[in-house]
Amino acid sequence: MKLNIAVLAGDGIGPEISVQGVAVMSAVAKKFGHEVNYTDALCGAAAIDAVGDPFPEETFRICEAADAVLFSAVGDPKYDNDPEAKVRPEQGLLAMRKKLGLFANIRPVQTFECLIHKSPLKDELVRGADFVCIRELTGGMYFGEKQEGTEEAYDTNKYTRPEVERILKVAYQYAMQRRKHLTVVDKANVLASSRLWRKVAQEIAPQYPEVTTDYMYVDNAAMRMIQEPTFFDVMVTENTFGDILTDEGSCISGSMGLLPSASTGSSTPVFEPIHGSWPQAKGMNLANPLAQILSVAMLYEYFGLKAEGKLIRDAVDASLDANVRTPEIQVEGGGKYGTKEVGEWIVNWIENNA
Amino acid sequence: MKLNIAVLAGDGIGPEISVQGVAVMSAVAKKFGHEVNYTDALCGAAAIDAVGDPFPEETFRICEAADAVLFSAVGDPKYDNDPEAKVRPEQGLLAMRKKLGLFANIRPVQTFECLIHKSPLKDELVRGADFVCIRELTGGMYFGEKQEGTEEAYDTNKYTRPEVERILKVAYQYAMQRRKHLTVVDKANVLASSRLWRKVAQEIAPQYPEVTTDYMYVDNAAMRMIQEPTFFDVMVTENTFGDILTDEGSCISGSMGLLPSASTGSSTPVFEPIHGSWPQAKGMNLANPLAQILSVAMLYEYFGLKAEGKLIRDAVDASLDANVRTPEIQVEGGGKYGTKEVGEWIVNWIENNA
Ligand SMILES: CC(C)[C@H](C(=O)O)[C@@H](O)C(=O)O
Ligand SMILES: CC(C)[C@H](C(=O)O)[C@@H](O)C(=O)O
Repeated sequence: MKLNIAVLAGDGIGPEISVQGVAVMSAVAKKFGHEVNYTDALCGAAAIDAVGDPFPEETFRICEAADAVLFSAVGDPKYDNDPEAKVRPEQGLLAMRKKLGLFANIRPVQTFECLIHKSPLKDELVRGADFVCIRELTGGMYFGEKQEGTEEAYDTNKYTRPEVERILKVAYQYAMQRRKHLTVVDKANVLASSRLWRKVAQEIAPQYPEVTTDYMYVDNAAMRMIQEPTFFDVMVTENTFGDILTDEGSCISGSMGLLPSASTGSSTPVFEPIHGSWPQAKGMNLANPLAQILSVAMLYEYFGLKAEGKLIRDAVDASLDANVRTPEIQVEGGGKYGTKEVGEWIVNWIENNA
Repeated sequence: MKLNIAVLAGDGIGPEISVQGVAVMSAVAKKFGHEVNYTDALCGAAAIDAVGDPFPEETFRICEAADAVLFSAVGDPKYDNDPEAKVRPEQGLLAMRKKLGLFANIRPVQTFECLIHKSPLKDELVRGADFVCIRELTGGMYFGEKQEGTEEAYDTNKYTRPEVERILKVAYQYAMQRRKHLTVVDKANVLASSRLWRKVAQEIAPQYPEVTTDYMYVDNAAMRMIQEPTFFDVMVTENTFGDILTDEGSCISGSMGLLPSASTGSSTPVFEPIHGSWPQAKGMNLANPLAQILSVAMLYEYFGLKAEGKLIRDAVDASLDANVRTPEIQVEGGGKYGTKEVGEWIVNWIENNA
């Protein structure tokens, strides 16, 4: 297979983990005889500094022309702390989502046995949790009509039937590949937009008779995720609820630094870690590259290349088992490994295994 | 003091716990020489069955005329499972909030040492968690302009400056009575309504120089509450975010069945357990009356009657220590106590102590 990858390294620790993601991608490609071409592009604070726009037109064109985007992280404190800043790195994220039509944000939540003790939940509760949160990413309050104001202000949470249908279809497809259990999360007892979601879901559900669909109010889902995370298989919800629930979901695993995500839609899909740009650690060879590396696994899998994805997952598991870990997850008495050393170890493992 | 209390027992286990709440209220009143008059009023499914309205006009008048409302729970599965039902018990809740101007929902989250093991969080994380969630209750998407539809639908998340100001003032007053730490939760990086909240908060904050105010995005707050619940003292947020976060907050304590809440505003305040009507247990003398009883403590405290509130809290602690507990929190080998027995034990303790 031939793949053109746009590489958006972004800010903070982004460039360091990006290098490792690319190295792993190349090692796997070599092993399986794929040809991968990379094109770097600017985004985030780096792009604001360079051209005054967090998602420049040229970056958009590079992404659009690529088969997939390997994204790292954006964000810089110099913009966070300036309330007057007119352009912010996050706007680049929103622009990217909208311009690339990335309506489905997919976040697998899984636990790693060796990190269960890091979960804020009791071990026995979280052990075995393995679900996918699917968040609608280009509709709802994020993009609805807004009125700014110092006396009153509003946002509009609007959804159209096609917007709801397409994300539910993605959710059902995931459910079919997994344990066939879909939870549709909404607030249909209060919100008109949620009632539309529920109505459309009830119409689509019969097309997937093998899937058990249940409906849950968002307040209830926020609790259930903590009380019984193993209940969930695939969960789907609208943009704002999804923002809250996907973050809650990731943090219960104790493995935030290890979780990848995919955003897919009408144009080029984007693969990225769920964690941020950790500006304090920039250039210090401290950041865990595993979430970025697992994003590469998701990328391969997206193109149906399951063995490639599996090889990466096995390599990551092997690195954890061998205690080749960055400081924040290293065991007492374990060796010192930085971003680079972990990435190189994994590349090496891939070259010498399977 | 003379207090007129509207008693809204509602549905399911509501009537049973209501009786115990009233009994405790009376025992305390007698001890301190207060005069309390009770007026029962219909609400919820019971009111739909009787008069076709989950919050009838007469109930509203009784509440309005009272000094406080002692509320229990509403909800009945016969309405939940009927998507065609035009009137639902929950609408009674929303009508009550709106008509009584209950703009501030106050939910203390505390842990009880003897129930820490019931928390989904690791004991050492949740131990000592003690915070108050303040949720705006009559604005935002719940009450904003809506458009129902099967092709598109929307809700409007609108806030005006006075709505934001008054709830923030309540939050600052709580913070002043507590550890003087207020966390304002919003999504100001995306939502216009949140930017208004943040702007108003930044204007009001200097009026409370003793209070440390911090601002947190809602996705971050949903994580922080799990990762470090002891971080919070008072948290304030808008209606929809508050719905999610208050439920999340309650469930981490492991003591959901014990947590009371208050809703206050421009007219009569309402005191109620955070739990629901548990229809399956109706009439079975199984429900834990402690959340209802602690609602009575909040009620007394609202009127500045601190010793009265303290006496109730001490009685509740004593009942837990003595293992006089309903089945769901009873220790192995502990005696069998129902709603009635726990309530009576507490009344008895109050009569014979302090
Ligand atoms: C930065 C922000 C706009 C963004 C969002 O809320 O979508 C982030 O929190 C995320 O979840 O990707
Ligand atoms: C029943 C429902 C409308 C209500 C709400 O969301 O406000 C409930 O979840 C609550 O939190 O009191």
